[in-house]
Amino acid sequence: MEHSYKYREIYLKLKQDILSQQYSSHQKLPSKRQLANDQNVSINTVKNAYEQLFAEGYIYTKERQGYFVEALNQLIIQDEQITQPLNTQSIELNSTFQYSFSHMTTDITEFPIDVWSKHVKEAYYQFKNEMSEIPPFKGPFELRQSIAQLISYKRGVVCRPEQIIIGSGTGNLLSTLFQTFASHQKIAIENPGYSRMRQLFISMGQEIINVPLDKKGLSVNHIKSNQPDFIVTTPSHQFPTGTIMPISRRIELLNWVTEHNKFIIEDDYDSEYKYGTDNIPSLYSLDKNDRVIYLGTFSKTLMPSLRISYMILPQQLLYPFDLATHTSITDLSSINAYALHLFIKSGNYEKYIRKMHHIYSEKRECLLKTLKKSFKEDISIYDMKAGLHFLLNIKTNHSYGTIEQKASEKNIELYTLRRFMVDEPPESNQKTLIIGFAKIKLEDIEPAVLKLKEIFNED
Amino acid sequence: MEHSYKYREIYLKLKQDILSQQYSSHQKLPSKRQLANDQNVSINTVKNAYEQLFAEGYIYTKERQGYFVEALNQLIIQDEQITQPLNTQSIELNSTFQYSFSHMTTDITEFPIDVWSKHVKEAYYQFKNEMSEIPPFKGPFELRQSIAQLISYKRGVVCRPEQIIIGSGTGNLLSTLFQTFASHQKIAIENPGYSRMRQLFISMGQEIINVPLDKKGLSVNHIKSNQPDFIVTTPSHQFPTGTIMPISRRIELLNWVTEHNKFIIEDDYDSEYKYGTDNIPSLYSLDKNDRVIYLGTFSKTLMPSLRISYMILPQQLLYPFDLATHTSITDLSSINAYALHLFIKSGNYEKYIRKMHHIYSEKRECLLKTLKKSFKEDISIYDMKAGLHFLLNIKTNHSYGTIEQKASEKNIELYTLRRFMVDEPPESNQKTLIIGFAKIKLEDIEPAVLKLKEIFNED
Repeated sequence: MEHSYKYREIYLKLKQDILSQQYSSHQKLPSKRQLANDQNVSINTVKNAYEQLFAEGYIYTKERQGYFVEALNQLIIQDEQITQPLNTQSIELNSTFQYSFSHMTTDITEFPIDVWSKHVKEAYYQFKNEMSEIPPFKGPFELRQSIAQLISYKRGVVCRPEQIIIGSGTGNLLSTLFQTFASHQKIAIENPGYSRMRQLFISMGQEIINVPLDKKGLSVNHIKSNQPDFIVTTPSHQFPTGTIMPISRRIELLNWVTEHNKFIIEDDYDSEYKYGTDNIPSLYSLDKNDRVIYLGTFSKTLMPSLRISYMILPQQLLYPFDLATHTSITDLSSINAYALHLFIKSGNYEKYIRKMHHIYSEKRECLLKTLKKSFKEDISIYDMKAGLHFLLNIKTNHSYGTIEQKASEKNIELYTLRRFMVDEPPESNQKTLIIGFAKIKLEDIEPAVLKLKEIFNED
Repeated sequence: MEHSYKYREIYLKLKQDILSQQYSSHQKLPSKRQLANDQNVSINTVKNAYEQLFAEGYIYTKERQGYFVEALNQLIIQDEQITQPLNTQSIELNSTFQYSFSHMTTDITEFPIDVWSKHVKEAYYQFKNEMSEIPPFKGPFELRQSIAQLISYKRGVVCRPEQIIIGSGTGNLLSTLFQTFASHQKIAIENPGYSRMRQLFISMGQEIINVPLDKKGLSVNHIKSNQPDFIVTTPSHQFPTGTIMPISRRIELLNWVTEHNKFIIEDDYDSEYKYGTDNIPSLYSLDKNDRVIYLGTFSKTLMPSLRISYMILPQQLLYPFDLATHTSITDLSSINAYALHLFIKSGNYEKYIRKMHHIYSEKRECLLKTLKKSFKEDISIYDMKAGLHFLLNIKTNHSYGTIEQKASEKNIELYTLRRFMVDEPPESNQKTLIIGFAKIKLEDIEPAVLKLKEIFNED
């Protein structure tokens, strides 16, 4: 309803006066005609204001007698101070770095936005009925079919679309999964490992077992002596070290969970990019005993801000999962989900991955070369030819804190191994940096490495 | 890497043979040249296969001696049965009804998809840097600014963007919020009320207090005697009854939480649509003591499948919230968030709401008229001239179960009051239906009402 300025003025004035008890309870208001005369407005304007105040319960009517003020308690106003403006500290600004070695970003400059927005439009026309409703909790069936086909081919993951749950992120998917289980579980997590996942399990009240790594990945002896209910692992490209878990360790882990009736949670976060060899098949593909929960994501292949990930459940968990989540609502936007479905189905997804594979290969090669040329024997690189980052060991007397602070001062986004370790690493004249190469521009690599070097040249 | 068919054949055969222990541990593999001769392929093909097996840890090398088979444990295969195909019961199909009276859907046939997909494209170009990263947990600052402006004007909610958190749904936003508080809280919830929210708090392990409604909304006496920590309420249009909470009750509630140091959670889920009066100002707008947590959503104004909602925190909760969520990742897709920001900023959002207001008014009028004409004195309608649904009381001897079953048989999507009540309603020859009018087509109203009537005419 459109209203005049005068309507608003009368409505607001009366409302304020009633709230501040300028009127007494049950006081009769002037008739519509009288107020209209006083204010020099139409009767209709007053009528609208009175009806709105009536709808909100400020006034009531008695038949043939007019409008009366409701008996209202005084609204308590406790302390003016709490409604003071926020102090400036809490104002948030987007921080931007000159150069980024972040492992958390992707390069989206070549993202085919025209194709994507065309798929958004097509998705609307093809799935209009579905989009007008609350989406199914596990995500649209069509996307689950596309993903099943995609990962069967790319990751050796053979599953039915019914086993796939799509959500905004692996964290939220896991939170949902653990509604299926009794509240106290022992969760084995790699150390160093993905710190946010550790935090997530802690916030869920689970017991964490931090499992050290040897050169094959997480230590099976540690598993055997701690008997966790779930083993969270990144076998294709351990995060952050990059270790590829060899088949011998995979068999040991699978056999252990099979014999003990436990589960592996395989976080296959960046297995799409491999340089020099084929993709490493997933642990899931080796499992014949329904013991692996598989996590995949489009955060690395497309962009982290899209927020689309998926989880594949062993068949034995499907029914308990459905039962535990039957009143839950998905966090996945259907418009993106259907657009992604069409993006995959049309072959545009594969085409984009091939293009990005080429771009990332080139950046990676160039960055490795430039680092070696610049740092020479001061560094060693632990490079497993996969994913979007590698580890760099550097001889330095700087502490991790100093390195991070200097990087920030120089406007470089840089993360160190410390971030991913449970305990402060022991004193050493070697430090390990996580070098992500997705976001940095090819032409920025040389100046960025020079600037990185300054950190270690300074006192 | 692209590989020949022959490469794949050799790689898979060797892998399978090693896994099934056709080779003994440490057995020497044929030289590349020899295998190439045997298989009639190039040495390079064999080299690639060996290197892939090496990368996966199936084989190892000794310098100048060639490749050897790793010592692997046998992979346990417990029971073939668990990997049988799922039974057909678990296959999911999109259920479609001929006519829908659902309160959960919106009409998206007039959604300006061309404008939206144009904003998707613009969002990419304007916010490319932000989109290449994991988005900020509270949502993009730009959208929070747009929402702050929008609700200041539409809902009288005056807040700073810093107070706004955007997420995929009110449920997830509340889950996050409650990480800020000690684990056991007493939550007062309206009965009848939004059943999924009740479920959510139960799954969080909170204590639920089901508060009955009187004609002003939730009972303050019940609040006083139960002393909850949080009061969840839908004051603008109680869900599902539609009651508008009058100012007297609002003041009572606000004063109670102020005096007792508790909070109100105001779920303002569908306040954008009002028929005949202006919008009812939010409870938040009345609060001077930093005591109201406000929830809003784009599920009703745009579409439920977009999954964008927001929560406005009192200033006193900002710091504890930031502290509790500093390692959490948002479930909101930036591409949608920025597109929505541009959709609001350009005025296209307001334009769409105005258009939909007109369409929904027309459907509502027509449905009310048709129901009254068809059911005559058998029904009474509790219609608060707001939102996208109303309640209909009908004289019938059918049970709720029978009504729901018959509706389903007749391919009608229909919900009854039972769904939203904690306890089974008492026996009565009156039943209450929730009649949503968003999704039904104008031209379908007459036949849909006729079909609805059949339910009650049959035995």
